[in-house]
Order: sequence, then structure tokens, then C-alpha cells
Amino acid sequence: MKIVITGGVGFLGQRLARTLLQRGTLIGPSGTEEPIDTIVVLDTVTPEPAIATDSRLSVAIGDITDRAMLAQIIDDRTTSVFHFAAVVSAAAEADFDLGMRINLHGTLAVLEACRALPHPPRLVFTSSIASFGGPLPAVVDDTVPQTPQTSYGAQKAIGELLVHDYSRKNFVDGRAVRLPTIVVRPGKPNRAASSFASSIIREPLTSLDAICPVSPETRLAILSPRQAVVAFLQAHNLPAAAFEHTRSLIVPGLSVQVSDMVAALQRAAGAQAVQHIRWQPDAEIQRIISSWPGAFTSQRALNLGFRADAHMDAIVQAFIEDDLPAQRANT
Amino acid sequence: MKIVITGGVGFLGQRLARTLLQRGTLIGPSGTEEPIDTIVVLDTVTPEPAIATDSRLSVAIGDITDRAMLAQIIDDRTTSVFHFAAVVSAAAEADFDLGMRINLHGTLAVLEACRALPHPPRLVFTSSIASFGGPLPAVVDDTVPQTPQTSYGAQKAIGELLVHDYSRKNFVDGRAVRLPTIVVRPGKPNRAASSFASSIIREPLTSLDAICPVSPETRLAILSPRQAVVAFLQAHNLPAAAFEHTRSLIVPGLSVQVSDMVAALQRAAGAQAVQHIRWQPDAEIQRIISSWPGAFTSQRALNLGFRADAHMDAIVQAFIEDDLPAQRANT
Repeated sequence: MKIVITGGVGFLGQRLARTLLQRGTLIGPSGTEEPIDTIVVLDTVTPEPAIATDSRLSVAIGDITDRAMLAQIIDDRTTSVFHFAAVVSAAAEADFDLGMRINLHGTLAVLEACRALPHPPRLVFTSSIASFGGPLPAVVDDTVPQTPQTSYGAQKAIGELLVHDYSRKNFVDGRAVRLPTIVVRPGKPNRAASSFASSIIREPLTSLDAICPVSPETRLAILSPRQAVVAFLQAHNLPAAAFEHTRSLIVPGLSVQVSDMVAALQRAAGAQAVQHIRWQPDAEIQRIISSWPGAFTSQRALNLGFRADAHMDAIVQAFIEDDLPAQRANT
Repeated sequence: MKIVITGGVGFLGQRLARTLLQRGTLIGPSGTEEPIDTIVVLDTVTPEPAIATDSRLSVAIGDITDRAMLAQIIDDRTTSVFHFAAVVSAAAEADFDLGMRINLHGTLAVLEACRALPHPPRLVFTSSIASFGGPLPAVVDDTVPQTPQTSYGAQKAIGELLVHDYSRKNFVDGRAVRLPTIVVRPGKPNRAASSFASSIIREPLTSLDAICPVSPETRLAILSPRQAVVAFLQAHNLPAAAFEHTRSLIVPGLSVQVSDMVAALQRAAGAQAVQHIRWQPDAEIQRIISSWPGAFTSQRALNLGFRADAHMDAIVQAFIEDDLPAQRANT
């Protein structure tokens, strides 16, 4: 099997690549686990440090909208594509054209590259709960329509519609996973509106200050990177028939208030860690975050075996185990 | 005011153009009725016969994805755009690339042309209840998500997301109307999956045979061309604030079974007219039509003053009054 991960230098792409190398197999065209021969990570930047030293893994540098390049990467040997490349929420809001180019036209380019293959590859597309918006019930479920109030959310909702339609036409075997906010992201703050949700855990654990632009009462649905990768593999390995009238699933998230996250930080690292959080309200970030559902039930995904993290403490602990050593080394 | 109607040589575009010429005014940038100076009908073909003889009206020929041409038509003087240009349902299903080119990239081109103007014009975008699909409640309402099962439906749902997001960004002042099946269309059968719904009324009234590819029990939500034009003007003239978290509205339709339509034909034209209907089941057409909601309540649109036709007999009568003379002349 040849697997392509777009945007694969991002933290989720890297984690997935390493997990695939360790796992060694994935459900292939035969419908059973098949050995992974090749993983190509496509991104605009080179990973530093290297993702892994493994002869099966290579990195390709290119723009996701470059169709000639994509046709070389997503070639006839490709059996699976994980399409993660995206411009994140606040960045897509600040630069509309960039968001449209990468999130909409980039996704179209990936779908067309898949369609050109003799056999429809499996495609896992990362959508987001940011595709919800407007007046929402307290608990969002599978029957709630997406009326996004950000360009990023609109572009992700459009991507889901495209993934379903290309799948219905048998151009690709797509699966779109609506991810909760991923917490704790390793690395540095980024331009996602939800960037703070990782910062307020990650920075204090390395004795750095973090800015929290939203109120302690703000409710978020979150998922650890560890559990996100589990969800990607589950989404990939499900039979196509599991999806029925839509290729989209809401990945279950843990519903927490920001104050719950801070309390977990305190339990893990003490009161002095919490002192590193600076509360600096930002109305635009608060608006974007508050437009997303803070809690949902994802009955279809639960029925298919997807699971949320068990507790906020487990999410903090996973970061400490998986990422804190490297995070400390890079600080 | 300068008004552009894309796909304006179609029957709805022509009817709208004539109505606008008669009306003479439309809500303009001032928020009050303003005189209409110019109407440009853009399409790929010349209307035969001419839509009207009026110095305010002109026809432009071009492809909706031709951005340089669009920038000339949708120029700084343009205050309103009615974007009707589309590849219809069965045609978009048969030719995926054509549907994507016109329905998705064409809509993007219109939105970008509007965005380039110094003041955001009003834009009325025709979506469709074909954007619904999959398992649906017996009565679809404003809270039901769009999970289209046709490429046309997916492209229309995407267009709605784009219209909302471009409006939210103040690039355009958009309004998307999800139209029921329009009955009775004048002219000839086309490649819409719902083409039969007009044929079974229209053809018998001109002593021609019509094919009905679906069962008499099939339920459809329908709207007369007369009432559709009323809906376009209402959608255009509403203040932007009326739309809130979505620019999309379900235009109320009359829910009928095909057998109700045939009964109305018989009441209007006698039993011999009904003999012109040939029942030839087509599984693919039945699949597409059955994937659309046959009945819905559109509380948001009703609250804003939109209305369905009162009765099937009124729909047949509107066709007899408005279109049958020309239909007879062209048969």
C-alpha cells in the first residue's frame, strides 16, 4: 500500500505517519490489513526534526493546488490519502483568498487526483466542528445542519459535500471526520482561533506564559492528538457501506469548560503553572469559539466505535507522555 | 439600477425580466424602490423570440465561467444580480465535469465578480430542494440538514454555503432560495429529472404525448413560475437583516402527488387530455425524485411573507393564462 498524507508535516500528520510506520499495515483494497510499503508526506515545508528514519517514509514539498505535482504524488500505486492540508480558522478568516485557495481549491485538486486513479483510493478528509454555527441546540447531534459562521467552517462544510459526492460517483472512497478542537497540540501557538486551548496547557508546562482570549465559562468539545489518530485509522478502515447517506461523521469529543482545563493543569502541575495563564479577552476569538458547539452527541460515530477521551486529566497526561519531552527540548 | 440575470434566457429568467420591466422599480441601494435603468440578460444562447422590446433590456452571450466577460457585465453600475445559470439535475448527474464547471465554478465566478464591485450588490441565487437527500422526515423543515444524493444537489448546497459566506464577509448581499420543482415550465422537456412534472400538464394541453417516468403516488413539492417570480422579488427586496445566520430560505411549495396533478389536468382539459400521458417507469428518475422531499414547512420563509400556490388547479390555470398561447404557437 502507498499512503499519501497531505499537510503531513503538521502535528497530526506527523503523528499519523509515525503510527502507520509502527502499525505496519492498514485495511487495503482487499478489505483486509495489508502491509504499508510507502508513506509520502506532502507539505509546503520540510519537517524539522525529521518525522522518522524509515525507508518507507518520504517527504514531498509542494503546493496542494499544483495539480501536476499532485498527480505525481497521488499516483496509480496510491491506495489511501489522508487529506489534512488546510489553512486554519483565524488565518482563513483574515485572508479569505488564501483560505479559498487551499481549503476549497486544494481539496478539489486532491479529489481530482484521486479520481484520475484506476481504482478509487480511500480518502480521509479532516473537517471540523467549526463547520457548525449560528443558533445551535445546547447539544449538537447528527441531525443538526451546518450553517458555518466562518470562512474556514464554510470551506470545510463544502469539502464534506464534495467528499460525499465524489464518493457517491465512485471517484474516491471518502470519509470526512468532523474533528473537535484538538488539545493539547504540541509546538507553538498558531493562527487557529482555538490555538489558546492548547497554549493554556502547553505553555505553563514549559514555564512559559499563555494568553487565554476567552472566558473561563467558555465551553469547548476537545479531542487529544492521540485519540484523533485513533479516529483517523477507524475512519479509514471502516467499510464504505458503513457511511450510507453521508460520508461525514462527528468524531466524539470531551465537552469541557476552559475552567475545567485550567483545573486539570493545576492538578497535573500545581498552582504556579496556572499563574502562567494571562486572561486577555479577545472579542473576535470569543465570537468564533462561541459559534462552535461546546457539546455534542455523535450517535452515528459512537455506533461505529469512535470514542472521546475519557477525562481532561487523561488529555493532559497524554501530552506530558507523548510530547512534553520534545516540547521542552525545543523551548 | 442595473440588474444582471445570469441564465436569463431560461423561462424563469425571461419571466423575471419581463416582470421587472413592467414593475419598473426594485429595492435599491437606498433601501427604497428605485427605477430600473438597465437589465442585462446573460446566457449562452440568444432568446427566440426576443424577451421584450424595451430600451432598458439587452442580452449578452457568454460563458458564466468567463471572468473577464463577467467583469464587463457585472460592472460598477450593477446593483442586483439574479444568478440562475445552472446545469440541471439529470444533466449534472450525467456529465459531472459540466455540472461542476457551471454550477460550482460558475457560481464562484459570479460571486467574485460581485466582490470586485465598490458596493456589494444584492444577489439572488436559485438553489433547490434537490439539495436535500438521504433519509428525510415526511415533512422537511428549516432544521433538516442538506445531505444531497445528486451532484446537482451537492453543487447547489455548496453554492448556498458560498453565498452565505460571501455575504457574511460583505462581499455581496446574497439571498439563496431553495426552489421546489417548478411546474408548469413552458417550452420543451429538458434534462432536469423533474422535467416530466411539467410535461404531463403541458404536452396534453397542446395535444402532444408526455412520458411520466415515476409512479402516480410519487409526491412532489411544486411551485408555479408565476409564484417563483414573486419569490425572487421578495427575496431580493428583503433587508439583509432578515436572514440572520443563513442566507438560505426554503420557498414554500404545494405538496402534491403526481395523481393530483393528473386530476387537475383532467378538470382543466377533460379525460382525453389525460390519455396523452404514457406511464413509462424510469428507475433512475424515480430514485432522484424520491430522494427529494415531497412536502416541507418553511417557517422562516413563511414568516418573511413567502407563499406557496394555493391549489394545483391554480397552477394549471396560471400556465393556461400565461404560457399556453405561446406554447401552442411554437408547437
